[in-house]
Amino acid sequence: MMQGERELGQFLLLVFDLLGIFVFALSGGVLAVRKQLDLFGVLVLACVTAVTGGIVRDVLIGAIPPAALADWRYLATAMLAGLVTFRWCGLIERLRNPVQLFDAAGLALFAVLGTGKALAFGLTPFAATLLGIITGIGGGIARDLLVVRTPVVLQQTELYAMAALIGSGVVALAAAFGLPQFPAMVVGALLCFGLRFMSIRRGWRLPVAGTRE
Amino acid sequence: MMQGERELGQFLLLVFDLLGIFVFALSGGVLAVRKQLDLFGVLVLACVTAVTGGIVRDVLIGAIPPAALADWRYLATAMLAGLVTFRWCGLIERLRNPVQLFDAAGLALFAVLGTGKALAFGLTPFAATLLGIITGIGGGIARDLLVVRTPVVLQQTELYAMAALIGSGVVALAAAFGLPQFPAMVVGALLCFGLRFMSIRRGWRLPVAGTRE
Amino acid sequence: MMQGERELGQFLLLVFDLLGIFVFALSGGVLAVRKQLDLFGVLVLACVTAVTGGIVRDVLIGAIPPAALADWRYLATAMLAGLVTFRWCGLIERLRNPVQLFDAAGLALFAVLGTGKALAFGLTPFAATLLGIITGIGGGIARDLLVVRTPVVLQQTELYAMAALIGSGVVALAAAFGLPQFPAMVVGALLCFGLRFMSIRRGWRLPVAGTRE
Repeated sequence: MMQGERELGQFLLLVFDLLGIFVFALSGGVLAVRKQLDLFGVLVLACVTAVTGGIVRDVLIGAIPPAALADWRYLATAMLAGLVTFRWCGLIERLRNPVQLFDAAGLALFAVLGTGKALAFGLTPFAATLLGIITGIGGGIARDLLVVRTPVVLQQTELYAMAALIGSGVVALAAAFGLPQFPAMVVGALLCFGLRFMSIRRGWRLPVAGTRE
Repeated sequence: MMQGERELGQFLLLVFDLLGIFVFALSGGVLAVRKQLDLFGVLVLACVTAVTGGIVRDVLIGAIPPAALADWRYLATAMLAGLVTFRWCGLIERLRNPVQLFDAAGLALFAVLGTGKALAFGLTPFAATLLGIITGIGGGIARDLLVVRTPVVLQQTELYAMAALIGSGVVALAAAFGLPQFPAMVVGALLCFGLRFMSIRRGWRLPVAGTRE
Repeated sequence: MMQGERELGQFLLLVFDLLGIFVFALSGGVLAVRKQLDLFGVLVLACVTAVTGGIVRDVLIGAIPPAALADWRYLATAMLAGLVTFRWCGLIERLRNPVQLFDAAGLALFAVLGTGKALAFGLTPFAATLLGIITGIGGGIARDLLVVRTPVVLQQTELYAMAALIGSGVVALAAAFGLPQFPAMVVGALLCFGLRFMSIRRGWRLPVAGTRE
């Protein structure tokens, strides 16, 4: 029964990981279509956006070879998302700011999952929080650098790294206090997504930023 | 005698690896001269273009420290190529599109050699194919990012990552079916170079790209 | 007593490492303020500038997880520098070219410390020199790429990578000849900083660069 629970937990982690891959790849694919790249450019940008954060995390915690290279399902999922974007780009474009929305969902999923994997590899809650942030923002940074624009993470007036920090921090704090991990991941992901979403839609910002003239 | 054959094989691999370093470094050097960088900038760009792909591959397969840092001959070769470009840039410029040509040769050599090294480190044919592509395109991406231009790999109408995929895939498939590696590498490299060459000279593209409006 | 000396040595190394983190983070923070990023952007750019070189070095020598993630003092120092820049940016701006000055100090400290750590991990003097250069220039490259400008290391008429090479080379040569490491680090850092400083203030360049028309 515990065996069954563990298998269920690992299955759920895989499902959410692939979901994060999918939505991040969509954000990369939409940007590539906007920049008028051809099919292969769309696929490459979708894959880079989806797996870079996780690969950097795996390298930093010593999980070699990285999951995104060892397991074909990750890149297959990213490519599927790239194909979807390429085929139905008109439909996706009609949604308001879809790049930012998918990006926010990917950020939330990757931040909490990255923190969880770092904890599983024995890192401290502090380091695991950082690795969650890196997992979350790495793909978006690589995506933006490849099309030569300033990464979203540095753009003014948006809570981006802060959202990832809160999502990762909830998971790391739960681990530090011995609380169950899965509910902490759900709470962390919802907080991260909600914060990012409100930042985009309602213009939420860091209060401190207002202190500059 | 088998000892002699193994030594010959390793010697040939080293020769082709250094050849890949040399032509990739030329492509970086030519771009640096065009951007009017000084001698050190030319050397840095030549080295970065030549070794980044291999270093990323070595990090991802756990070959630490990476060959390009542990063995002085790699960077010495890249610097030699940088000096050659700096001295005879006028001559090299007169050739038609030399950056792209050297880049295509480097892509082909690195894709097959990167796949071979990943297989030698026990990775699956799927992961080895990806690592071959990364070895092939990593240096060019770093080169383009350093001079702040969109990487060639994402530019429209060119078969770039696709060429690397085919070169790497041939080597990985040969390994999966237990076929000898060296002929597979030769075939893979020729296919990759030929595809990239025809894409540049004849405007070959992905047929699917034409399905967009 | 030898125990006491070793502890003193490690304490001094940590102090200088954190000093390098601080000045590099200042250079990142000043650039972020200039680019009108908000508080979080300033903190992110300060941290990225301060720790990227060291993280890349640690990955390449197999020191996993990297010191900057495992030890909270590194990022705390970088964030403190980011806050200082954000609060007193007017004061810092009035200094002449403060980004370049802090950058030069960080370059010198990181080049010699990176070389020292690589030697301590058993790498050859050749590889250790390269890793010192990477430690020194990595953060600045990441900083410049994030704000989408050509990295300082490639800008014309400046001795940048050359300064790092000389600083690292002194430490590596001292190790190769069995000379004591700490004085070599001091000499190497002073040479590196002095060369970079004179390059900025007096326009020192590579003599070979003058041979181009």
